[in-house]
Amino acid sequence: MFNKISIIGCGLIGSSILRAVEEKKLASKLSVFDKSSHVNSYLKKNFSSEVCSNISEAVIDSDLTIIASPLSSYKEILLSIKANLKKDSILTDTGSAKKEVNKIIKNISLDNIHWIASHPIAGTEYSGPEAGFSELFKNRWCILSTDKEVSKSKTSKLEEFWIKLGSKTKFMSFEDHDYVLSLTSHLPHAVAYSIVKTAINNEDKFKDDVIQYSAGGLRDFTRIAASDPLMWKDIFIDNSDNILKVLDNYSKNLDEIKNAIKNKDSKKLLEIFASTKKVRKEIIEAGQDTEKPDFGRK
Amino acid sequence: MFNKISIIGCGLIGSSILRAVEEKKLASKLSVFDKSSHVNSYLKKNFSSEVCSNISEAVIDSDLTIIASPLSSYKEILLSIKANLKKDSILTDTGSAKKEVNKIIKNISLDNIHWIASHPIAGTEYSGPEAGFSELFKNRWCILSTDKEVSKSKTSKLEEFWIKLGSKTKFMSFEDHDYVLSLTSHLPHAVAYSIVKTAINNEDKFKDDVIQYSAGGLRDFTRIAASDPLMWKDIFIDNSDNILKVLDNYSKNLDEIKNAIKNKDSKKLLEIFASTKKVRKEIIEAGQDTEKPDFGRK
Repeated sequence: MFNKISIIGCGLIGSSILRAVEEKKLASKLSVFDKSSHVNSYLKKNFSSEVCSNISEAVIDSDLTIIASPLSSYKEILLSIKANLKKDSILTDTGSAKKEVNKIIKNISLDNIHWIASHPIAGTEYSGPEAGFSELFKNRWCILSTDKEVSKSKTSKLEEFWIKLGSKTKFMSFEDHDYVLSLTSHLPHAVAYSIVKTAINNEDKFKDDVIQYSAGGLRDFTRIAASDPLMWKDIFIDNSDNILKVLDNYSKNLDEIKNAIKNKDSKKLLEIFASTKKVRKEIIEAGQDTEKPDFGRK
Repeated sequence: MFNKISIIGCGLIGSSILRAVEEKKLASKLSVFDKSSHVNSYLKKNFSSEVCSNISEAVIDSDLTIIASPLSSYKEILLSIKANLKKDSILTDTGSAKKEVNKIIKNISLDNIHWIASHPIAGTEYSGPEAGFSELFKNRWCILSTDKEVSKSKTSKLEEFWIKLGSKTKFMSFEDHDYVLSLTSHLPHAVAYSIVKTAINNEDKFKDDVIQYSAGGLRDFTRIAASDPLMWKDIFIDNSDNILKVLDNYSKNLDEIKNAIKNKDSKKLLEIFASTKKVRKEIIEAGQDTEKPDFGRK
């Protein structure tokens, strides 16, 4: 599909792309770069693709360069690879926030490079190349964002790439992406961190009990709150405007419940709970979850 | 195991007990009562046990009476069955809050009845007798609470009953139960309702997008926020003291994250996220969740 693909950053996401590209033979040549020597020796041991020790060499002659590293590393990476990016090639990423990254790329003014942002909405609570697997993107959405001037043939080519990895694709502006994701993903993460921190207070004599009985709801939050700290720190900083706005709305909704509990206001509580119950139905209908009780956990 | 068992209230939990008792033949006779005529006709069609139209008759001669209806219905139920409860029999329930219920029972002063509270930590987001299944309690905790004067042989008998249903049992005081559950279950539910209400604003033009991309975190909250409204309204009112205390601590932790985002304080964010990541490991080690990415969802 491509003559050469380069992957910069080989953690959970990068190594899953690497696995899928090798398995599905989507490139004649594949080069990977990761700044960690631990990751590099793991890659050399487990994959046949070229593992580069120099980032600027990794992208030479590449038709598709994929940045799959934390958002805060983009600027340094882009400055290191800029001179060696192949003319008329595609540059993409896998980051969870887009507006700030897009600004960085515009400021660097890449010449004759087709920048199309990708956000595969896929992941687990594990990180590192050992955690990757080729089916990670299967049946998952991948949101693509680009400026109008990028050629249609290049966006179609990148779209086709994600479809080959098993994803469903959708185009969205950089701004809309960041707002929608602040609701579907960034807000839930902020909340999950707070709830786990509240529930598991190490000085509390009930700490062991809380862990023991976590199946009553808490368990589902701990998975979210176990996501890669470095990645999430970057997302919260890059998308801070949206997240802070959304958190303010959230606090108002929480206060509404708090007041209803304080006033033992049955009617209000029932009204809130009935409205959120309806949403679940819509999510099932949109094919975004299974009906199976407890997600098929054993 | 028992000569006769009575189940008052036959929704998700009651009907799952009914199924398990029939399947495992834990009683020679089983009577059920539900105030809903819809439930009654479903029960008559699908089960061989006796479906009573009169609540006080349902408990006659019963060695184990199980109340599996919303907390707010207990008082009326207890007054209706009090006179017909068999002497020296066991009375239990399946409610998610204990302290207030225990007060009600003490005030009614049942004579020669062994009141032992049960809380099977099991459930799905579905309600009604159609949603029940006999394996609901398998490998789940069931917390038992009782006063010291209740005879050891009766508590052992009830413990054995839950073990036969597949549960693991643990004894906890009424007060400790309510505090631990406010952290592991009631706080997560309050938060889930608020987050779903924030994310799915029907006037927002991005509503469909939010549902479409809910796999990024939101999805997991919608399941919790879809639980039975009536049941949760009662829990929030019965356990309001603990829940309000815990919600205050939670708001403080959320403010800490908000401020770190506002100040773009990377160090603080990393510190918070690393602390919650550790908790996940402890939950896996306690056997309370599977390592499987995405809970084995398809």
